[in-house]
Amino acid sequence: MQQINLSRLKSSLLELSKIGFNEKDHGVYRSGFTDADMKARYWLRDLALNEGFIADIDGGGNVWFGLGDLDKPAVVIGSHLDTVPAGGIFDGALGVMAGLEILRCMKEQSIALDYPIRVVATAEEEGRFGGMFGAQAITGKLNMDWLLSAHDADGVYLTDAMKAHGFNPMDALEVAWPKGSMRSFLELHIEQGPVLEQQNIPIGIVDGISGVFKWIVHLKGKADHAGTAPMDMRSDAFMGLADFAHEIPRIIDENGTDKTRITVGKVELKPGYPHTVPGEAIFTIVARDMSETVMKELAEACDKTLLSIARRHRLRYEREEVSWLAPDYCSDSMIELMEKKAAARDYKYLRMPSGAGHDVQFFTQISEAGLIFIPSVNGVSHAPDEWSHWHHVEMGSNLLFDVVLAQCQQDEV
Amino acid sequence: MQQINLSRLKSSLLELSKIGFNEKDHGVYRSGFTDADMKARYWLRDLALNEGFIADIDGGGNVWFGLGDLDKPAVVIGSHLDTVPAGGIFDGALGVMAGLEILRCMKEQSIALDYPIRVVATAEEEGRFGGMFGAQAITGKLNMDWLLSAHDADGVYLTDAMKAHGFNPMDALEVAWPKGSMRSFLELHIEQGPVLEQQNIPIGIVDGISGVFKWIVHLKGKADHAGTAPMDMRSDAFMGLADFAHEIPRIIDENGTDKTRITVGKVELKPGYPHTVPGEAIFTIVARDMSETVMKELAEACDKTLLSIARRHRLRYEREEVSWLAPDYCSDSMIELMEKKAAARDYKYLRMPSGAGHDVQFFTQISEAGLIFIPSVNGVSHAPDEWSHWHHVEMGSNLLFDVVLAQCQQDEV
Repeated sequence: MQQINLSRLKSSLLELSKIGFNEKDHGVYRSGFTDADMKARYWLRDLALNEGFIADIDGGGNVWFGLGDLDKPAVVIGSHLDTVPAGGIFDGALGVMAGLEILRCMKEQSIALDYPIRVVATAEEEGRFGGMFGAQAITGKLNMDWLLSAHDADGVYLTDAMKAHGFNPMDALEVAWPKGSMRSFLELHIEQGPVLEQQNIPIGIVDGISGVFKWIVHLKGKADHAGTAPMDMRSDAFMGLADFAHEIPRIIDENGTDKTRITVGKVELKPGYPHTVPGEAIFTIVARDMSETVMKELAEACDKTLLSIARRHRLRYEREEVSWLAPDYCSDSMIELMEKKAAARDYKYLRMPSGAGHDVQFFTQISEAGLIFIPSVNGVSHAPDEWSHWHHVEMGSNLLFDVVLAQCQQDEV
Repeated sequence: MQQINLSRLKSSLLELSKIGFNEKDHGVYRSGFTDADMKARYWLRDLALNEGFIADIDGGGNVWFGLGDLDKPAVVIGSHLDTVPAGGIFDGALGVMAGLEILRCMKEQSIALDYPIRVVATAEEEGRFGGMFGAQAITGKLNMDWLLSAHDADGVYLTDAMKAHGFNPMDALEVAWPKGSMRSFLELHIEQGPVLEQQNIPIGIVDGISGVFKWIVHLKGKADHAGTAPMDMRSDAFMGLADFAHEIPRIIDENGTDKTRITVGKVELKPGYPHTVPGEAIFTIVARDMSETVMKELAEACDKTLLSIARRHRLRYEREEVSWLAPDYCSDSMIELMEKKAAARDYKYLRMPSGAGHDVQFFTQISEAGLIFIPSVNGVSHAPDEWSHWHHVEMGSNLLFDVVLAQCQQDEV
């Protein structure tokens, strides 16, 4: 069985992690199309060129490198190079650097390939300008409207950030891969959640990305003096919100699955004074599940619950559906291949959904796509203390290597 | 029976309401020790002087005017002249101008008084610098520490605001009335709540000011990715808060009275992102009751509930008791006198607590004190649409007149 070289992978990953590293908070700052992000991209392209790989950066800022001409459908290993502000060193970078390590192994062992192979480090996955920009561009999902209107929280437009780094933003519309040109897309990523670690399982084989909907809910009552308004004469918007949140476990029990997540993450009360009964509560509901039918049932149950609570507390209830994304499923044949390869190595694995979004969700639509997780220590990510154990990095990379080999060699599967 | 002159009272009150009136939002802006507030004080002093009353402004900014030498304990009618920003025209001003109207009636009818009478327009009741500044000064509750450290939300110190209007702040420590020098303190005020209007009762006879405690509670859990953290592995600080708020009605049922109020008015979630499980919830609890024993039971019940919810959700629970104010009771003899006088006029009245703080609560400690409420339309106050009907103004003022007369004339009671 092939083995990746963990010390080489580790050393390259740690070298990459210095780009954008902040000595103060020990976080990595490589938001999409910042100087640090672009520095990492050029560093990676030059490294790949120096090691004798085909390497380039496309018009969307995606770094590509690999072996073999693209005269047949390519096997693509990919993840992203950008991070959230004060992010960790594994999120995204792991999948890219594991791809580089696999190419190095193939090259030094002169492994014969029936299909070309590419590694891609996608651009702006984390969301400075909305997220998964590179993946959208490659899979032909990018449109002019999005490209021209996307801006970050400081009001900087994506197009301006691209121009500042020598890109012509319009070129991003030209980088889509033609239909049938991608044989498979394979991603290795940290779980960013606690499930694998808690169950002491080193490998997650992802069957899909949860669908998600986001609501902004307004409950409007009446702001009153907290001393003079008797409890039974109030229209307390916060008490309406609290009663709703209290019902979330019931809503999941009745309508959801073990993969359902419902979160109230942001709350604003108006006027928000200690001595005033809240006249208005504005809050978000983010709900996920692997089944769109279940998502619809959850939405209906939330709606019904909020309506009845609003009536009970004499509140006006309004909601805005900010987004509704259906679940994306990895291909069954890829999941089966991964399970077969994990079993061959005696790796314990868990078939699981991904609650977080990943580049792979765009690639499911143009190729066979698969996603491998390794455990996150304490389930932490998007923070300086994000960590994964090196033996898990090795196991995940070896499994990815097996799957890539199977995909690159005609008669293996 | 004596009758106040409503059209004269109305015209004076409306003239006062022009000082600090904002044409845009139709609110009155007379925060304590602003130019508008001081303009109103000088206007009132000069008006009283011109009408032949004794009148002065003391070192705490309180306007005093009246009849008779202070060689015997005085009957004092009082309320405040300052308003919240964008306040209404009745809150505070009503009690002061009703006092002026009663003095006018006494003067024009040459009513003989066995005790001197004074009207006081107290300074900074509404809380720009903490509130009830004038009442504290008069009743000897002001201390140097409070005086020197009090500042408004913009960081302006009370002492600087006073100096800007020609006061020596230290003089405020010298305006306390000697023990036994005040026979009674009588206040007429709008209810600022919905109870009288809803029950269609024109007069409230206040038996006391609710005690109140204010907590700032911290629930600390763990911020997690809202997609990757399974529901049963979360330490969701907001769900802890929601479960607590849901228990408030039970806490009141089990430990409170019909006069209990518990309010969660201010909530902050950290990090406060829609896609992140809240790692921390910081919120206020403000609880009121007319019995300090009940207050203690409510506090204990809140504590117990929060502890058990914190355990259930794996949260750390901390609380800070920002304030604990015991209830203040109006004197029984004054309540009885008011009830007798209201009955004599065939006024329907309700004996009720005040959930809001009032100047009277400081005067309960140095004199016989009483407070009369009239209905607030829709229970609104501290807003431009604060209103009270003129016939209620008349009824409240007439009742106040009766009580004042009874107090000023030796053999009446």
